[in-house]
Order: sequence, then C-alpha cells, then structure tokens
Amino acid sequence: MTQNIYDTSAFFDAYAKLDRSVHGLGGAPEWPELRAMVPPMAGKRVLDLGCGYGWFCRWAREQGAARIVGVDVSHKMLERAREFDRAEGHAPATPQITYVQGDLEKLSLIAASAGDTQFDLAYSSLALHYIVDLSGLFAAIKQLLAPGSSFVFSCEHPMVTAPQPQGWITRDGGRKAWPVDRYLDEGARTTDWLAPGVIKQHRTLSSYLNLLIAADFALERVEEWGPSDADLAAHPDWAGERERPPFLLVAARASA
Amino acid sequence: MTQNIYDTSAFFDAYAKLDRSVHGLGGAPEWPELRAMVPPMAGKRVLDLGCGYGWFCRWAREQGAARIVGVDVSHKMLERAREFDRAEGHAPATPQITYVQGDLEKLSLIAASAGDTQFDLAYSSLALHYIVDLSGLFAAIKQLLAPGSSFVFSCEHPMVTAPQPQGWITRDGGRKAWPVDRYLDEGARTTDWLAPGVIKQHRTLSSYLNLLIAADFALERVEEWGPSDADLAAHPDWAGERERPPFLLVAARASA
Repeated sequence: MTQNIYDTSAFFDAYAKLDRSVHGLGGAPEWPELRAMVPPMAGKRVLDLGCGYGWFCRWAREQGAARIVGVDVSHKMLERAREFDRAEGHAPATPQITYVQGDLEKLSLIAASAGDTQFDLAYSSLALHYIVDLSGLFAAIKQLLAPGSSFVFSCEHPMVTAPQPQGWITRDGGRKAWPVDRYLDEGARTTDWLAPGVIKQHRTLSSYLNLLIAADFALERVEEWGPSDADLAAHPDWAGERERPPFLLVAARASA
Repeated sequence: MTQNIYDTSAFFDAYAKLDRSVHGLGGAPEWPELRAMVPPMAGKRVLDLGCGYGWFCRWAREQGAARIVGVDVSHKMLERAREFDRAEGHAPATPQITYVQGDLEKLSLIAASAGDTQFDLAYSSLALHYIVDLSGLFAAIKQLLAPGSSFVFSCEHPMVTAPQPQGWITRDGGRKAWPVDRYLDEGARTTDWLAPGVIKQHRTLSSYLNLLIAADFALERVEEWGPSDADLAAHPDWAGERERPPFLLVAARASA
C-alpha cells in the first residue's frame, strides 16, 4: 500500500507552492522532453496515473483526447483538479475528465469501477517512486492498454532516491557532487521533502526497465533528464542538475 | 579512433596481474550474471569485440560454437590469446578461433577482412567504454548479426565513468559513498587506472540504451551489477560495490 502523504496538510500546502503546481506543465522543467515522448492524443483514450491537480488531463483534453481518466490517491489533489475544471467551464459536448480516487496499486479495480477497460495511452508524472508493488502496477497497466499503445512516465532518478542521507557535497574547487550509496539496496527511503517522513521507494534504473520488459513492454526511449544549455541560461541555479539527473523519463510500447 | 592503452607496457603488465587476467572468466565477479545473459552457442557463429586474452572465445569453443572471431585493438593481447590457444592444443577438427587485430570503430572492415559477414552472437566485455563512435559501432554490429541474434555486453557503469576525480568518500558513520558529477556531460575522461592517462568515454546509461534502440535492437535485459550476499561472504572487500554498481550489463536482440 502506498503512503498518501499528499493529503497531509503540511505537505499539500508546501506542494501547492511548487512551480509545477502554480504554473502547471510549463512549470515543470522536464515537461518539454516528456511531452516529446507523448504520442498524438486526438481521439485517444488517456489514463493519467497520479494525476494530481489534473494539468495533464486538461492538456489531453485540449489535444483532442476522446476520453480521459485521472487517478490519484489524494482526495485533496482531486478536489483541486475538479475546481480547476469547473473554473475552465467547458461546453457540455467537450469530453469530461473522470477523476477517480484510489491507490494505484489497485489500479485494475479502480479502472473497472470507472467503467473503463481499455486505453490508448497511459501516462504518469513523478508518481511511480511511491509505488511498492511496481511489477503488479505495470501488469495492470499492460492489461488496460490496447495492443501497441504507449506508456510514458517520469519518476525520480534512482541516483536521487538511493542515498541516505540525500544531499549535495561541495568538492575542492567549489563544484557540486552527489554522493551515491545503497544504490543496489532497493526499498523504502524516508526523506523530509516538503514534509517530514515522506516515504519513497528506491529501485534501480535497471529494475524499472526490466519490470517493464517482464510486463511485455518494448522500450522505446529512456531519458535521464537534466537542464539544457538554454535552461541553464534562464535558470543558472539548475546547474547542479547536470551533475546528476533529477528525473528518469521512459517511453514504452505495449506489445501487440 | 580509440586509444590503444593495452599495448603500453606499464598497462599491459599491470593488466596481466588482475584476477580476470590470471583466472579468466571465473576471475571476473560479474561473469555469472553476464554468462546467464548469453544464449546457447552450440553451432553458432560468435563475434567477441575486445576479446583480450581470448577467454570468452575459448569458452565459446568449449560450448560448441561453430565459428569464433575475436577482435582486439591490442597486438599484445592477441599474441597472448594465441599462446593460450597453442598451449591448449586442439585436434585439427576443432573449430579454430580467428583473432583479428583492429580498431572496433572499423568493425565492418575488420569483419570483411576476416571473411565473415554474418554472426549469431555478438559479445563484448568491458570494451565499449573506450569507443568514441558507439553509434557507428552499434550499426556495424547490427549489420553483422543475423536477424533475431543476440548482442550481449558489459561496460563500466556510467556512475563510475562520469566523475572527475573518481573516488570514494567516507561519510559520518564510516559508510562509503561515490560522489557523482558531470553525469550528463558525455565525452572523454582521463583516469590513472593501471597506468596514467587512460582515456575512457563517458556516456549516460540512457545513451547506451537509446543508441541500441536507434540501431534497431530490442532491449531484453539491463543489469547494474553488484556483488550478491554470497559474493560478499566470500569477498567482504567488495562491499562498496553495492553502494554503486561498477558494471552495466545489457542483452539486446537484433530486430528481424
């Protein structure tokens, strides 16, 4: 069972102040690279795993998706997502987004309760590093995807989730470095990110990939995201993220 | 063009004393995991890229491979490989191993000169981190493999090749950690491994995988090797290698 830290007030309030919360997809530095991995959505059935405020769901609607289901464990996040939707105000003919509260580890049950049994795209942004039974989740996603469909996700990079404690050091000459330890010891890591006691699941980069392959996905693209030169010109404070990438981005295809 | 450090006397002499040089495949801690990724070789045509002393080539012959070609940039290594072969003494009917000296970056030319145009397995142990044009090499390998054939390789893990300087730190409590920097900045790294001025090519883990995908390989298995509990019981001094894996192991299949 996944920890639901998002419904903790301290966490939720701090999360609400992040750039990616305030500015949506455009506030997430990795979004341009992740977006490039998302196939065209016109007429497609889209499943967003860990949809949070629903930014991606609303973008999928703009892109012409025919059906959109967003799943999140957090009641508060979904409440906010529905508020955003109401504020946008759509004509009745516009596809409605269905938000479903639930633990992604019970995805099959959740999708069935929403009446949806097949999708053309599964998407997940920065949620999978909370999942304990990732093998089970990948199998459930595969089951829900039409053959040949895409699964695109981002998660924290395993170099970030591995060490305890996490943090930069400064070496002689002033350059930052990120000490890695415990990389091969997979399992829960407790960090104080936004709120104390946030539990994330560390797994190796190869585990993410091998679990996908075992669930009958073909790997299409693996990205270790870091800021480009243009990003650094606009945000010099991101320089450290080139020393070790903060995010892992993966595009895979469900075998036919 | 790849640096040929192996023909430098200081390097060659130091290399000759490594466990993996003295004891062959069994002296390489990652060998059991790599071996498990190698398909059955009976009756197969096998290409070993960076064959060194020829340990894998001779093992392929034991496993019943029909044809074996070993390529290495180092004259000295191949000389030693041929000595080992002569010392083994094989009946004339036993498949001979062809050793070819050359830069892997000219693999197509090398294979053509040996009269071989098609293989059923390409194998490479700890050589690819010396290659500058890895994209070109992967394309040449794909060209030389019969459809559906396997390509299995190991290389230094990108967490190892990235930082400058490379080295462990000890944190409070005495635990070792491996500081990573420059991970996203691919290119040459100079280290003093066995001899001063050894040049290796750092690339990210995702680059290895995306270059394979671009060359029309399907990824089958990705391993970040570290010692098992049994390994650590026998070699307590390997414990650091669980903090960050020293080797990357990959199995891919040439698309039909």
